[in-house]
Amino acid sequence: METKSPDPVRAGSWEPRYAGRAERMQASEIRELLKLLEKPDIISFAGGIPDPALFPTAAVREAYGAALGSDDQAGRILQYSISEGDPQLRAWIADHMASKGIACQTDNILITSGSQQALEFLGKLLLSASDTALVTAPTYLGALQAFSASEPAYDQLQLAMGNRTAPSYREAAQSAGGSVKMAYVVPDFANPTGETLSLESRHALLSLARELDIPIIEDAAYTALRYDGAELPPVQALDVADAGSIDASRVIYCGTFSKVFTPGLRVGWICASQPIIHRLTLIKQASDLNSAAINQAVMRHLAETMFDAQVTRARQSYRVKRDAMLAALERHMPSATSWTKPDGGLFVWVTLPASINAGDLLKRSVAEAGVAFVPGHAFFTDGSGTNTMRLSFSLPDITAIENGIERLAGLVRAQHLSA
Amino acid sequence: METKSPDPVRAGSWEPRYAGRAERMQASEIRELLKLLEKPDIISFAGGIPDPALFPTAAVREAYGAALGSDDQAGRILQYSISEGDPQLRAWIADHMASKGIACQTDNILITSGSQQALEFLGKLLLSASDTALVTAPTYLGALQAFSASEPAYDQLQLAMGNRTAPSYREAAQSAGGSVKMAYVVPDFANPTGETLSLESRHALLSLARELDIPIIEDAAYTALRYDGAELPPVQALDVADAGSIDASRVIYCGTFSKVFTPGLRVGWICASQPIIHRLTLIKQASDLNSAAINQAVMRHLAETMFDAQVTRARQSYRVKRDAMLAALERHMPSATSWTKPDGGLFVWVTLPASINAGDLLKRSVAEAGVAFVPGHAFFTDGSGTNTMRLSFSLPDITAIENGIERLAGLVRAQHLSA
Repeated sequence: METKSPDPVRAGSWEPRYAGRAERMQASEIRELLKLLEKPDIISFAGGIPDPALFPTAAVREAYGAALGSDDQAGRILQYSISEGDPQLRAWIADHMASKGIACQTDNILITSGSQQALEFLGKLLLSASDTALVTAPTYLGALQAFSASEPAYDQLQLAMGNRTAPSYREAAQSAGGSVKMAYVVPDFANPTGETLSLESRHALLSLARELDIPIIEDAAYTALRYDGAELPPVQALDVADAGSIDASRVIYCGTFSKVFTPGLRVGWICASQPIIHRLTLIKQASDLNSAAINQAVMRHLAETMFDAQVTRARQSYRVKRDAMLAALERHMPSATSWTKPDGGLFVWVTLPASINAGDLLKRSVAEAGVAFVPGHAFFTDGSGTNTMRLSFSLPDITAIENGIERLAGLVRAQHLSA
Repeated sequence: METKSPDPVRAGSWEPRYAGRAERMQASEIRELLKLLEKPDIISFAGGIPDPALFPTAAVREAYGAALGSDDQAGRILQYSISEGDPQLRAWIADHMASKGIACQTDNILITSGSQQALEFLGKLLLSASDTALVTAPTYLGALQAFSASEPAYDQLQLAMGNRTAPSYREAAQSAGGSVKMAYVVPDFANPTGETLSLESRHALLSLARELDIPIIEDAAYTALRYDGAELPPVQALDVADAGSIDASRVIYCGTFSKVFTPGLRVGWICASQPIIHRLTLIKQASDLNSAAINQAVMRHLAETMFDAQVTRARQSYRVKRDAMLAALERHMPSATSWTKPDGGLFVWVTLPASINAGDLLKRSVAEAGVAFVPGHAFFTDGSGTNTMRLSFSLPDITAIENGIERLAGLVRAQHLSA
């Protein structure tokens, strides 16, 4: 019998030799769940996936044709391009930001490959290992993944409860080995809760950030998708009004075309002071040189010709789905269950009876009911929230929403009664 | 007269609060030089910019149309997609790698947004602050920028000279505060020198890497563009032959479609052992979720239908340009100047008389001769190489190459005589 001594220089044993940050990266439960969507029969409330029926396919097709219209133009658009992004697209975005009360110039805008890339760049710019990032609990999982490459500590941003002062954040950060370097919020229809920061909370956030002397990252991924109520000013608009100009603002705004138009072109943006945009441009250069110029040209065409109409169309469609989900939850869920009533966005956040573990429920739900969702604990930095779940209403049709919630509620009721 | 005390909490004073890595990021001389290309009259030997006359524009236009052909297909291709990349494109790449002696599967391939992103991911995976990366001197500036986000130390990879042993690298890394974590090479027609690693040097590199127990990053950006001589086996192929399989290999291969087809679609790839690809996929998720599925579908169509023909076409065109540049250098440069004779790629590396500073020469050259190039010192980690320059022959036509070299040589001769 042949015996072989283990060969320590081979790849199988490399794990201990990765950089520390690599150890902290875990597979996203959400991304893994995308694989469930391949099962044709599943009703998925899992990913925050836009409805492909809303994609402006004909306009996209036309825009690619136009962008590649002449050989001369194609030669430019298929070439390397500037890291900052298409100047005309950035000019459109600057006008768009101005319409939200954020007066700014083309040079205040950096194009990113979706807003996920924006978050990753901002972690790189702001966080050294052991520095503290303030995040809500729960918060967007993808932001935690983006920031975690920089190996920060997290502390909980508490704006309503009021028992956390700037000195207490400072002390906690110090004992974690660094200092507070940023606060991250999704102020409108947040991922995962669907909740919106009140005007008071926006002002409280700005006060805290001023006292701590830190930047605020405002993730506006869902802001355009408002179904009820009046728009609230972006945190950046409040700060610009106070500071006098975008270049004096501490707020860094991340926007995206993914939720309104299509996530497939990978076009998002950062709006911030010019010194910050300059630094982020260097990070963009080092990361992937530039985002595809052709996709930026197509997005520019869509933005210039049909932004408002597309926003209206998406709002109408998703409003109906949100209403269907809230009505189904009301109709079917047992009374020991509660959920948020979002004014926009793609998500409802459900708090189950404390006896129910949403991870276990998911396994049964997929196997027995053919219904998928995201267990809520993934959105907490401390692994709490085991009895919560995130439901997205964007992808299934009305009938599937009704049927899926009914089946899911049946499982919740059965599990609650048996507890 | 109103006096205002400086407000320390405003953005202008933020620089000291960036993460340490942000301080190390400087604007790329190359990217800044791209701005020179906007001047219509300049003859640019600066960027390694593919010739847009070689872009397969009609095929690209057709492929976008086909990818968006039906609403159903458009709905899939404009949606979020898996972080690993298009399975059919990865299968084509796996076959392509097999044709180079690297037998592998789809799961050994990760799609990246150009090979710049591959380098950035590998820095993240492998380098902690103060760890050492071994790089040649000179080396690709973009790799230094990508790795520098991880704040490593650099040591000089010396394969031919032979006076550096594994223990000497280990000791140097220790005194830099970490250990040796990777070696990075561009084995074929390197950026910036145009030089190719001999078979002996490839074996020497593998021996060193085995002794140091480190991975090798093989940047094959220019490999397809060979104009003379026989192909050499990729370092990864040599290692796979020795180790028995790709999953036992320590070599991480970075490929790209940018130089042969177009850089505008931002499609590159990494070929490596499955455990490494799995880790890199998590990094891709956290960085930008996925590369645009539509661009991957277009690239798949191009690769499947016309890869070999396109390689042949690019080789023919660039070979003529290389020959023109070498002939012009021979004809016009003073004898105290020497240069490489590359068998492929896009670059010739020129060593000027020691008295000439290439940075100063560039300023005069742009102003007086209308000729741009990249001063060589940017490609050294220690700022040496002040009398070197990188010339790219890919973008100008034959007449411009002849005229540009003649004018540049005139300046070199004048400066040499006046020294």
